[in-house]
Amino acid sequence: MIQRSFASDNNAPIAPEILAAITAANEGDAVGYGDDPWTARAIARFRQHFGEETDVYFTFNGTGANVVALSCVTRPWEAVLAPASAHLQTDECGAFERFAGSKVIPIATEDGKLRIADLEPYLLGGHGEHFSQPRVVSISNTTEYGGLYEPDELRELCDFAHSRGLLVHVDGARIANAAAALGSTPRAVTKDLGVDILSFGGTKNGLMGGEAVCFFDPALSANVALFVRKQGMQLASKMRYISAQFEALLTDDRWLTYAAHANTMAQRLLAGVSNVPGVTITRPARANAIFATLSREAIARVQKQFFFYFFDEALPEVRWMTHWATTESDVDEFIEAVKLAVLPLS
Amino acid sequence: MIQRSFASDNNAPIAPEILAAITAANEGDAVGYGDDPWTARAIARFRQHFGEETDVYFTFNGTGANVVALSCVTRPWEAVLAPASAHLQTDECGAFERFAGSKVIPIATEDGKLRIADLEPYLLGGHGEHFSQPRVVSISNTTEYGGLYEPDELRELCDFAHSRGLLVHVDGARIANAAAALGSTPRAVTKDLGVDILSFGGTKNGLMGGEAVCFFDPALSANVALFVRKQGMQLASKMRYISAQFEALLTDDRWLTYAAHANTMAQRLLAGVSNVPGVTITRPARANAIFATLSREAIARVQKQFFFYFFDEALPEVRWMTHWATTESDVDEFIEAVKLAVLPLS
Amino acid sequence: MIQRSFASDNNAPIAPEILAAITAANEGDAVGYGDDPWTARAIARFRQHFGEETDVYFTFNGTGANVVALSCVTRPWEAVLAPASAHLQTDECGAFERFAGSKVIPIATEDGKLRIADLEPYLLGGHGEHFSQPRVVSISNTTEYGGLYEPDELRELCDFAHSRGLLVHVDGARIANAAAALGSTPRAVTKDLGVDILSFGGTKNGLMGGEAVCFFDPALSANVALFVRKQGMQLASKMRYISAQFEALLTDDRWLTYAAHANTMAQRLLAGVSNVPGVTITRPARANAIFATLSREAIARVQKQFFFYFFDEALPEVRWMTHWATTESDVDEFIEAVKLAVLPLS
Amino acid sequence: MIQRSFASDNNAPIAPEILAAITAANEGDAVGYGDDPWTARAIARFRQHFGEETDVYFTFNGTGANVVALSCVTRPWEAVLAPASAHLQTDECGAFERFAGSKVIPIATEDGKLRIADLEPYLLGGHGEHFSQPRVVSISNTTEYGGLYEPDELRELCDFAHSRGLLVHVDGARIANAAAALGSTPRAVTKDLGVDILSFGGTKNGLMGGEAVCFFDPALSANVALFVRKQGMQLASKMRYISAQFEALLTDDRWLTYAAHANTMAQRLLAGVSNVPGVTITRPARANAIFATLSREAIARVQKQFFFYFFDEALPEVRWMTHWATTESDVDEFIEAVKLAVLPLS
Repeated sequence: MIQRSFASDNNAPIAPEILAAITAANEGDAVGYGDDPWTARAIARFRQHFGEETDVYFTFNGTGANVVALSCVTRPWEAVLAPASAHLQTDECGAFERFAGSKVIPIATEDGKLRIADLEPYLLGGHGEHFSQPRVVSISNTTEYGGLYEPDELRELCDFAHSRGLLVHVDGARIANAAAALGSTPRAVTKDLGVDILSFGGTKNGLMGGEAVCFFDPALSANVALFVRKQGMQLASKMRYISAQFEALLTDDRWLTYAAHANTMAQRLLAGVSNVPGVTITRPARANAIFATLSREAIARVQKQFFFYFFDEALPEVRWMTHWATTESDVDEFIEAVKLAVLPLS
Repeated sequence: MIQRSFASDNNAPIAPEILAAITAANEGDAVGYGDDPWTARAIARFRQHFGEETDVYFTFNGTGANVVALSCVTRPWEAVLAPASAHLQTDECGAFERFAGSKVIPIATEDGKLRIADLEPYLLGGHGEHFSQPRVVSISNTTEYGGLYEPDELRELCDFAHSRGLLVHVDGARIANAAAALGSTPRAVTKDLGVDILSFGGTKNGLMGGEAVCFFDPALSANVALFVRKQGMQLASKMRYISAQFEALLTDDRWLTYAAHANTMAQRLLAGVSNVPGVTITRPARANAIFATLSREAIARVQKQFFFYFFDEALPEVRWMTHWATTESDVDEFIEAVKLAVLPLS
Repeated sequence: MIQRSFASDNNAPIAPEILAAITAANEGDAVGYGDDPWTARAIARFRQHFGEETDVYFTFNGTGANVVALSCVTRPWEAVLAPASAHLQTDECGAFERFAGSKVIPIATEDGKLRIADLEPYLLGGHGEHFSQPRVVSISNTTEYGGLYEPDELRELCDFAHSRGLLVHVDGARIANAAAALGSTPRAVTKDLGVDILSFGGTKNGLMGGEAVCFFDPALSANVALFVRKQGMQLASKMRYISAQFEALLTDDRWLTYAAHANTMAQRLLAGVSNVPGVTITRPARANAIFATLSREAIARVQKQFFFYFFDEALPEVRWMTHWATTESDVDEFIEAVKLAVLPLS
Repeated sequence: MIQRSFASDNNAPIAPEILAAITAANEGDAVGYGDDPWTARAIARFRQHFGEETDVYFTFNGTGANVVALSCVTRPWEAVLAPASAHLQTDECGAFERFAGSKVIPIATEDGKLRIADLEPYLLGGHGEHFSQPRVVSISNTTEYGGLYEPDELRELCDFAHSRGLLVHVDGARIANAAAALGSTPRAVTKDLGVDILSFGGTKNGLMGGEAVCFFDPALSANVALFVRKQGMQLASKMRYISAQFEALLTDDRWLTYAAHANTMAQRLLAGVSNVPGVTITRPARANAIFATLSREAIARVQKQFFFYFFDEALPEVRWMTHWATTESDVDEFIEAVKLAVLPLS
C-alpha cells in the first residue's frame, strides 16, 4: 500500500492522462531538440491559452525555467528584485547568480508578496554604475507561503514596475493552483494583468517533469532564448516527451482539474485541522499548502505516519501540501493522525 | 507509418522495457530529489557495474552531465583539454565555460581522438598564473567521428594524464556502443583503464531522457557534486522517473542489447553502401555512425525519404546513425534509397 | 586655488611621501608582475605588521580587493553574509556575483554592523543542496555609516563565525581609520580578534591607488590567490609602483598619520556643526565620516562652495568626509559655510 | 647601477614626461571615478586622434582592457575568434571566459596573424543554438610574434568580418609600436581600416599603468561599457592619475617618440645579432621584439647578465624586447654579451 505524502506536490506521481500522452508519443522516430509535431502542438496549445504571439520554451525543471526566463532579460549588471522568500532566492542554490552573473536583491516581506512600497527604496537610482541596475521584478504565484496575488494587486504591481522600466516575471510553479483558486485562467492571472514572463509549472501539477517559459512579448526572447536555454543545459534532445505532457495538460482543462483538486483537498484538510486544539494555522491557505504550528511531539507522531517537512524549525512550523492525487480518504486519515497526535500521551 | 530517421540516435523512441519501467514507477508518492527507492536501486545497479565506491549523479541531458562532471573537478582558472571535435567544444554552446568560468582548450586531431603527443604542448607550464592550468582531459568514446578508443590506447592516455596531474573524463553519451563494439563492458572500457569520471549516456541508448555522472573516486565528488548538480539546474524533483529508466537499462544487460543492436544495424548499413558507386565511406565505422561522401544531388534524393544531417557541408559529407529501434528492413530500405539516389537521372 | 572636497576620502590627492616613493621606484627596469624588490619589501612590511605567515596580494582597487579576497574562499554554491549596507552589496555593481558566481546575502542592520543574532537565521541549514551554503561573513570596518566595531564586538563575531564554520573577511578600505580611532593597530583590530582575511585599504588613505588582500592563514590563499588575482584582472604588470606606495605607507606609521589626521579633522567638523541649529547629526561619527540632515535649501547652498554627496536623498541626509589632506582651515571654512547656509534668507 | 631588462616592455620604468604628468595632477582634491578635468582632457585627446565620436574607457591593465572591450559586445553564447597565440588566449588566465561566460575559439596560425581563410571554417553556421555564435574577431597588433598587420591586410580582414556580421577588436597593447613601424598613426592603422574596438596600450609604452578601450562606434558601448568596466573591477576611483598619463602620452606625439625609439633599438639589436654564428632569427622583427634560437648554453650565459624569457623552451627560442628606455649602449652591451656567449668555452 502506498503512503500518501503531504510534503510537496512534487512527491506526486504522474497523472494518468499525462502518462498516457508520454506513451502515445512513443511512436517511431522524431527529430530532436523540438523540431517535432508534439512540440508544435504543445506550443500551439500555449498560444491558444495565452495568445498567438506567446513565445514558449520548455525546460526540464523549475530552477531551469526561472533561470532561462530571467537570463533572457538581464545583463550581468542588472538585478532581479524578489521577495526574500522566493524559491529563486532560497531554493535554487544561486543558480541564477552563477549562470547570469547577476544580482538577486531579496526583499523582506510579511507574506511573501511584493508590493509597490517594497520596491521603491531600490529604485532611487543615484549610484550610477556602482550599483546593479534593477531590471526585473520576480514574484511567485502562488507564493511560497501558500498565498496568492489578487488580480488587482498584481495589476497594480505590474503597472508600477512598467512605469519604472522594470519587467515582471512570475515564478508560476503553481500558477495553475493560483488560477484555480481564483476561479480564473492562467492567462487572466498573468498576461492580462501585465506580467511579461511566466515560468509555467508542470512538474508540480501532474507532469513527470517539465516547465514552460512563456514570453508574452516575443521581443524579449527573440534571438536570445534559444541560446540561453541551450547554454543553460535545459534543451531536451527528445523534447517530444516533455511537449506531449504539456499538450495533454493544456487539453480538456486538465491543468485546472489537477490544480483545483489539489486546492480542494487542502481546504478539506484545513477544515479538518483548524479547530483541533494545539494546532494553529499560521498563514492564509489560498491554494494547496497549509502552514501550521503544533507541538514538536505532535509533529513527530504525525511524521511517523506521513511524510512532510518542517517549514520553520524554530517555531516549529510545518507545511502540509496536497496534490492532484491526494484523495479525500488520504486527507481524512491525515486529519485523524493530527487529532491523535495532539492528544496527551496516556 | 513512421519513417525511420538516420539522423541521430536521439531521434529514437523510448525502448519498451524503459517505458515499462517509467510506468511501473508511477505508483503513489515518492520523496523528491532522489531520496526514493528507485534512485537507491539505480545507484546500486551502477555500483554493481562499476564498483561499490562509485558516486553517481543523474542529470537531465548530456550537456548537463558533462558540465556537472567537469565543474566538480575544475576551478575557474583550470582548463579542460579536449579534441576540437568534442561535443563539449562544438555542440554545448559554451555551457561549461559559462557555468564553470573555465577554459576549454580545443586540440585539433585527425580522427577525434586525443593522444599523448597532442597533450604535451599544453603541459609545458612556465606561464605561471598567466595561463589557465590544465586539469582535465575530456574525451568522447565513441568519438564524434564514429570511432572509439582501443583499451590500450585509453590506458596509455590515462596513465600519461595521471602522471601529469590531470584527470580523465569520458563523455560517454555512447559509451555503451563503445563497449558493445569492443565486446567489453562499460567498466572495462573506462574505470579499469584509468578513467576518473564518466558521463554515462542513457538518452541515446533507449531512454526517454537521462544521463549519469559517475565518479570512480568519490573524493572527487564529495561535498561538491550535489551542489554543482543543483546549481547547474540538473536536479530532478521527481527523480524516480530518471532513476527507474537507468535501473531498467542496467538490468538484464539491456544497455548492451540496445547498443549492440544499433552497432549491428550500422554494420549492415555499411556493408550495403560500401560498394555503391559514388558513395565513399570517409571514416572508420566502429559503432553506430557512418560517415560518407556522395554527390549533393544524391544526398538530396535520399533526404526526401529519410531524415539525416550533413556533417561537413563543404565536402559534402553526411552522417548516418542507427539506434536500438532501427530494423533490418529500415536499413535495407535506406540502402536501396542510396543506391537509387546515386543512379544517373534518366 | 584648490577647493577642498568633503565628498569622499578618494577625492584626496596622493600624500607627498607616497608620491615620493613612486618617484623613487622609477629607477631602471624591474621584472613584471611582482617579482621585484619593491614588492618584496612591501610584503615584508605587511608581515612586520601582521605576522610572518601573512599572505599578501596587491590589487588595483577596493572592489578588486574584495572580490579577490572572497573568491579565494568561496565556491559558487557558497554564500557571503554581509550587511545590506556593505560596499560589497551596494557599490560594487555585483562584481563578486559575476566573477565568483556566488550569492551575497544582504542582512538588514540598524547601523551597518553585523551581530550574532543577525547571522543566526541564515545558519539553520536544513535546505541541503537547495540553498547557497554560508561560508564567509564579510563586514566593513569602519562601516559605511561611519561607525566601527569595538574589539570585543568583533572578537565575539569572529568566535561565533568560526564556531559555525564561517570565515570572517573585513573590507578594510578604511581599516586605518578604524585602528586610529581606537588608538590601536591594524593587526590588533583584525587578525588578533580572529579576522581571517583583510582587504587593507590604501587608496582612501593617501595612495594614488592600490589595495592589499591579506590572508592571515596562508592555507586559505595557497595555490589559489595568484590565479584568482590574475583571472580577476587585478595583477599589475608594473607592480613595483603599487608596492612602493604600500612600502611607504607602512613605514614610519604613515598609515596612522594620515588616518588619524583624517579622523581628527572629522571630529573638528563634528564639533563645529553639532550645535548649529537646523543641523542634526544622524549617526555616531567614529572616524572620518559625518552624517547629518539639514534642509534641502541649506544643502544646496553649501554645495555651491563644497563638493559632497547626498547619502539618503529622501530625508535628506548628507555625508561629509575628511581625509589626510583636509586642513583645519578647510574644516573651518566648511563649518562657516554650513552656518551661513542654515540662516534664513534675508 | 641598473641593469637593463630585455624581457618585456613592461619591465621599463615610467617615462619622465608621464611621471611629471602624474606629479602635476597631484594638486588638491578631485571628484572620483572620472568626473575630473584630467579625464575630460585625456578623452578629448583620444578624440583628437581617433575622431569625435570615439568612446573611451580607461582601465588598469591590458587584461582588463581586453575583457571590458570584448564583454561589451558579446553575450555569453557568442564567441570570440582569435589566433591561438593571442594574449587573450595564452596570457589572461581565462579572464574573459570567466567574466563574460563566453567562448574564445583559438585558431592556429603560422605567424600569429588571422586571415580570411582562417576564419571561414568557423562561420559555416548550421549548428544553430548548439554552437557558440561567432561575434568578434580579436587580433593583436603588433602580434605576439613581433609582427604586424599591413594596412591592406587588416582592411581586408575587417571588410570580411563586417560582411559576416562580425566585429573586429584589436588588442593594441603595442599599437603604438605598430603605428610607428608603419610610419603611420594609431588611427590610420585601426579605425580607418575598419577596426571597431581598440585596446590602446599605455603600460608597455612608458606609462606607470593604464590602458584605454576605444569604441569607434559609440553604439557598441552606450549604456553598457560603464557597467562592464565597474563590474569588471577596472574603474579607478582616483582616475585622474591614469588620465593624466594618457593626456601626456597623447601630447606632442610622445606615444610615437617612445614606441619609435623602442622599435629602433630592436632594429639595432637585430642588426647586431643577425650575423652572429649560432644565432638564428626566427621571426620577422617588425617592431620591438626579436625572436631567436641559440644554444641552451649560450642562452644561460646571456641570462647571467640580462633578464629575458624563453619563448619556446623546447627549441629553445628566446624573445628579446626593447622599450622606450632602452639605450644604444644597452643594446650594444647586449650584443656583446650574445657574441661572447656563443663562443666556445676556452
